[in-house]
Formats: sequence, structure tokens, C-alpha cells
Amino acid sequence: MSPRVWRIGVAGLGTVGGGLLQFLSERPDFAPAGGRAVITGVTARSRSRPRSIDISAIPWFDDPVALATSPDIDLFVELVGGSDGPAKAAVEAALKAGKPVVTANKALIAEHGAELAALAETAGVPLLFEAAVMGGTPAVKMLREAMVGDDVVGVAGILNGTCNFILSEMEQRGASFADVLSEAQRMGYAEADPTMDVGGFDAAHKVTILAALAFGCAPNYAAAEIEGIDQVDLLDIRLARDLGYRIRLIASADRTADGVAVRVHPSLVAQGHPLAETRGALNALFIEGTRIGRIFIQGPGAGAGPTAAAVAADIADVMTLPVRPVFQRPAGDLKPFVAVAPTRRVGKAYLRLLVKDQPGVIAAVSETLAECGVSIDSFLQKPVEDAGGVPIVLTTHAIAESVLTDAINRIEKLPAVLERPRLLRIARI
Amino acid sequence: MSPRVWRIGVAGLGTVGGGLLQFLSERPDFAPAGGRAVITGVTARSRSRPRSIDISAIPWFDDPVALATSPDIDLFVELVGGSDGPAKAAVEAALKAGKPVVTANKALIAEHGAELAALAETAGVPLLFEAAVMGGTPAVKMLREAMVGDDVVGVAGILNGTCNFILSEMEQRGASFADVLSEAQRMGYAEADPTMDVGGFDAAHKVTILAALAFGCAPNYAAAEIEGIDQVDLLDIRLARDLGYRIRLIASADRTADGVAVRVHPSLVAQGHPLAETRGALNALFIEGTRIGRIFIQGPGAGAGPTAAAVAADIADVMTLPVRPVFQRPAGDLKPFVAVAPTRRVGKAYLRLLVKDQPGVIAAVSETLAECGVSIDSFLQKPVEDAGGVPIVLTTHAIAESVLTDAINRIEKLPAVLERPRLLRIARI
Repeated sequence: MSPRVWRIGVAGLGTVGGGLLQFLSERPDFAPAGGRAVITGVTARSRSRPRSIDISAIPWFDDPVALATSPDIDLFVELVGGSDGPAKAAVEAALKAGKPVVTANKALIAEHGAELAALAETAGVPLLFEAAVMGGTPAVKMLREAMVGDDVVGVAGILNGTCNFILSEMEQRGASFADVLSEAQRMGYAEADPTMDVGGFDAAHKVTILAALAFGCAPNYAAAEIEGIDQVDLLDIRLARDLGYRIRLIASADRTADGVAVRVHPSLVAQGHPLAETRGALNALFIEGTRIGRIFIQGPGAGAGPTAAAVAADIADVMTLPVRPVFQRPAGDLKPFVAVAPTRRVGKAYLRLLVKDQPGVIAAVSETLAECGVSIDSFLQKPVEDAGGVPIVLTTHAIAESVLTDAINRIEKLPAVLERPRLLRIARI
Repeated sequence: MSPRVWRIGVAGLGTVGGGLLQFLSERPDFAPAGGRAVITGVTARSRSRPRSIDISAIPWFDDPVALATSPDIDLFVELVGGSDGPAKAAVEAALKAGKPVVTANKALIAEHGAELAALAETAGVPLLFEAAVMGGTPAVKMLREAMVGDDVVGVAGILNGTCNFILSEMEQRGASFADVLSEAQRMGYAEADPTMDVGGFDAAHKVTILAALAFGCAPNYAAAEIEGIDQVDLLDIRLARDLGYRIRLIASADRTADGVAVRVHPSLVAQGHPLAETRGALNALFIEGTRIGRIFIQGPGAGAGPTAAAVAADIADVMTLPVRPVFQRPAGDLKPFVAVAPTRRVGKAYLRLLVKDQPGVIAAVSETLAECGVSIDSFLQKPVEDAGGVPIVLTTHAIAESVLTDAINRIEKLPAVLERPRLLRIARI
């Protein structure tokens, strides 16, 4: 029998945890499946830190594991964060104690999802993580539940709002990465240590989870190919715009005959494409299935309101008692994750060179490309002030990455070429 | 206990029913919650009609009600269609017999949803209808499950692919409504009797269902304000384009202090807006919540593959045994649907006049508008060949519909005005 009152333990009282307490206090009518949700225990790094919500009446736990296993809770909500440490210990302890878990922790699920799914299914309890990907936009539920009548072949989208905000601002204001980043940090849009976001790791965690849900394979964060936006030059944003593109950090997962490819790359997206038109801190995702075709969803990827709403939706889902595997298929039946070798990937590319202003350079570059078997789609040479040379931009037809890398290595050695050519992928979506 | 094998009865073997049989034959690994789905009975208008799937091995029923109540089925799938008649009788019979029901029937749910929800909840069985709205794009699941941690204040979108195809083609090819409609009929994109689609009734059924899910109120199709696209002139599509808009059939549901407003109108949407850029037979929807902000989803709204995938996802959902009310809140607890009077609605409008080519017309029109208290936002007079007069287009600032109607009535009586002014709403989304 399901309890009519669900006693909830919340670990972590930051933005999301505070938003959840706020939601439950504002919505006394929140009664999924006729039950009530009551917070009966909290834990956080500091008990005394000033908070917008009064927690003095809620039992306090110093130790997340003690909260997770307390006989006074029926459901454990983990909002501590981090792939290991207290978050992992507490989630494991809760599942072993037979308690359903709701978490917003993308790193934990991406790096330890398969073992946690096995624990959850052994205990026969749900492990839900809607808030881990796209905040309030229900990408997880869509893939886990709404797409089971289809075979998903790929997902691609914008999963990190901080990167999208920075790229949008760089383009709109003509400011450098470093300038926009420090402003974003001042405004609270970027962390003091921005590595997880701008390095592409946060997006990689998220798309690793989506790949597992989409393809029924074990999440494999180690197999993700990750490139962040910290190397994106304003020059490339401008040249890409002249060619009809915008630069976006595209996270994608594709199922091919060779296996699964999970990638995060700054990529060119044609202007007018919904991902190119996704601006600021928004997130967006295309899901492609063999029967349904393409579905697009777009919405907020972070923030107290949206993320807490996603956590609350998961709590409601636990209260409705579904019997559902964590990642589309039972944990014991997850397909092995066969990674496609990066060199085997085929796609269109943008190459930007910086060359000396002298005759014969274009001929030398195009001969080298022809020798390597790279076919050019478009070519743009444009004088840019203060670029330290003459930029040449070319886009290629679809080509294997191994061929492209070979061509880049050879072009770099040409005497008139001033630096290693800059490679950006052109998104296939 | 849940049966390990779910015996499914399917009523209706048209596009969607055929697609469902196809899916289940292609996917022997379809095993939600560890169960298997097996078709153990079918019924349709004709047993002998040629079909792409061989049904000779499946027990045949002449009567949908007999199938719905057969002891040989655990789950009834209704794909017959129609708000009354055999579809309604069979769904009622199945629910009364304690069998879960999955349906794609928007008319049935929009017109009889509250009483069917009560039957389902009395029997303690699910009644699911993902395929009724937006085909394979999971709008129903999003509103019913993913948005329960938020308070939805409005939805607005394109819910009828036939209308969107016709409007897109009219604009792109400069063809009249009648010409594009007959071509769409030849290509199978529009029914022989297109009234349900082009009259806006299909979109109204769908948005009635979305309103119930979004606001937890009983579906009230009778309260929907409905205007189709059959009166949209190519002239207006062209003039709207000159003003920076496209015309789309927008279905919306809004929760206001006065009550709920459910409307279907051909409306102007600014170029570049995701709904203006939704072309052809695609469907798209904005969902706005107080916490999450805005979520946008876009995808196929019809077709065998997408719609059958939605039905299969609902079957999977039944097999996971959730305990969930049909429309967000228990049937006995649905809020009464308080409709906002159409005259109280406030919004911007597009008015197109056809006037005699003589001096003083513009003065007369603008004086009349000023007297009525209508404030003009933009004004366009443009000679158009064969229009039978001089078209004048104006857009207004936000204004109550009652004021607007009064102004239209008075303008119609001006001596230089050749016909009743044409009113189109400017979408607020």
C-alpha cells in the first residue's frame, strides 16, 4: 500500500532545494494520487545560513546518509550535487534502504547511473532525475515514457544555458569570451569556477543521460567526446555569421550501425534553424525517432522555479507508484554502450585559417585540401582588423574526421599559414 | 497483480490501428514493466477490406462493445473515432467492466471527458489519450505529468496540421483557399468533407482537452469559441505579410481572473516567432507556467507512425500501473469550467477594409475608430489588382472585443466601405 502521506527528506537547500520548499509551502493542494507530500527532514552544508524559507520547524540532520536511511522518511530528494562524495553515498543508502529517490544530480546519474539503476530495481523503487537535464523542460520524461512507442535514432540540442548565454552575448555585443564570462560571473549566470559549464562537461553529463534513455544503453560518460566553448573566438562567430551560421554548443547522441556517438562541440548551426534561434540561457532539444520523425522542445534549463518544478513533478511521479525501469530498459537488460571511434565520424566542417597576406596562399591551401580528398563547399576570405593576419574560412562537404585531421595537420605546416587551423563542426541537425 | 501478458483489444483498423498492429509486430521486445502486449481481438467497419497487416489470426469481433467487455482482453484501445455512437458506447462499456482504455479520439474526450474520467476513476483504471492531441508529440503527458509541479496559466499553438498546411501553401504559392484545399484533398492531406479541420472544430476539440489538463477543470467543448480558416483570403495573407506577420490557426486556452478562455481563431503571428515558422503539417505548442516560464514543443500532429507511437506509449503507461487522475485532478474534484465571455476578451486586432477609391475615406474610417475608442497601431493602404476596391489594413492596440465589434459595425455602414471589415486577431503569444 502507498502511504497517504509521503514523508520527504531533502538533502541540499541551495537554489533548487529552497525552490522545492517554497513550492510545497505555496501549494497545499499538491496531492498526486490523493497523497500528501510533507518534508520531514532536511540536511545541508550549513544549518544557520540565512534562507528565504524558515526551516526551524523541520527536523535537521547533520549527515545526508542518516537522513536518507531515516525511518521518518518515505522518499529521499538529493540536491547536494557532485558525482561522488555525500551525494552518491546518500543516494546509495536510500536505495538500499528501499526508499524512492528523486535527484537533480546530472554528474551522479551520468557517471554512476547503471549501478544506481540496478540498486533501485533490486529494491523495487523509482530513481527519478527530471531536473538533471533541461531544468523544467521535461526531456527525461519524454524520452523515458513518451518515446517508448518509437525507436529513437538521435538527439541533439543546447543543454547548457551558461554557454548559450555567453555565445549569444558574444555575437550580439561583439565582446570576447573572457569579457562576457566575467560579466556573466558578476551577474550570477556563471559559477566562480566556470569549468563544468564552459568546458562542456555539464552538457556532456546531460547528453550522456539522454543517450541512455533514448537508446536503452548504460550511461557511459567516459565515452563522451567533449569540447567546450572556451576556445571559441569572436572572429569565428563573426565569420560564421557571414556564412549564414551561428555558433552553438551542440550536445548530441546518435545511434549508428557502429555504435553510439555522444559528443559535445561548439558547432555551426544555420541561421533560422530553431537551435540557432535559441538564445540566452534557454535550452532546446531535437529528438528523432524512426516513426515519429522529429520532435523539438525548448524551455528554461535552470533556475529555482523551473528546476524545483521538475523535482516536484518527479515527487508526484513517485507518488503515483509506477513500475518502470530507470533507463527505458531494466538495469540488467541495458544494452552495452558501444562507442563509435571519433575518427570514424563523418560530417561537414568549418575551417578557419590565419594566413600571411601574400600571393599563392589560397592555391597552396586548396591544393593541400584536394590532395587529402577534402571537398570544399564554400570559401570566404575577408580582411578583419587586428586579426594578426588574413582570415580564410572554408566549409567542407561531409568528410571523415580522420581525413580532416590529416588535412589540418598538413595545412598547419604550410609556410604562409600562421597558426593551426581552427576546426568547428557544422551541426547535422 | 498486473498480468505479465496484456491482452489488447483494438477497435478501428484505419491508419492508426494499422500502424499500431505494425508497431507491435515489428517490436517483439516491447516489454514495459516486464510485461508483453498481445492483440487478442479486433473490430472494424469491414473485416474483408484489404489491409497491409494480416489480421486473419486475430479473433474478430463484429461489435465494439462486445470486444470492449470481452473476458479475453485486459486493455481496450479505441480508434474508431466520433464523439458519440459506437466509440462512446464501447469506451463506456470497457471502463464499466474495469478495463483500462487507450484512445486517440479527441472528439470523445473533449465532449464527454468528465463523465468518462469519473467512470475510469470509479473503476480504478487509467483512461489515456496521448494520440488525441498533436499525434506523436507528447503534449498530453507533458501537461498531465510534467507540469504538476507548476501552475499553468496558458497554452497556445497550432494543433491542426491540415489547416497549417493549407495556410503555408496559400502563402508560399499565392494560391486561394479553395485551390489549395482541393489539392490537399487530392493528395490525401485533407478529408473529402474537410469541415472538422478547416472549420476549426478539430483544433477546438484538442485545445479543450489541453485546457482540462492544464487547469484541472472539466473539459467544456461547448464553451470554446471557434473560427476556422475557410474565410481566410489570400489578400489577408499578403497584407499580413507586408505588416511582418503570418496567418496561423491559433488554438489557445488561458486562465484568467474571470475564468477560462478557450479559443480557435486564424491569427496574425509575427514573422520569426516559432509559431509563424511552424510550416506545413507540423503542430506546435507553447505552455506557460508561473514557475517554469515557457516551454515550446513542436512535432508531427498526425500520420500512422507518430499517432501509433503515441498509442503504444499509452499502452506502456497502462502496463506500468500508475495511479493517476485522468485530468490532473480527480474527476470528482475537477474545477468548474467558468468561461470568459467573448466580449470581455482584450487583444490586438487586424482589420482589413475594402473601400471605394475616393477622397476622405481614410478620414471617415479613422474618425469612426476614434469615436469608438479604438487606438490604431499601424496603418497600410496598398493598391492590389482585382481586389474589387482599395484595401486598407490597420492594426489596433489591445482593445476589448465588444468595443471592436461596435467599431466594425459602424465602419461597415460608412458609404465608402464596400463590405464588412474583416477581423483577424493578433496572437498574444
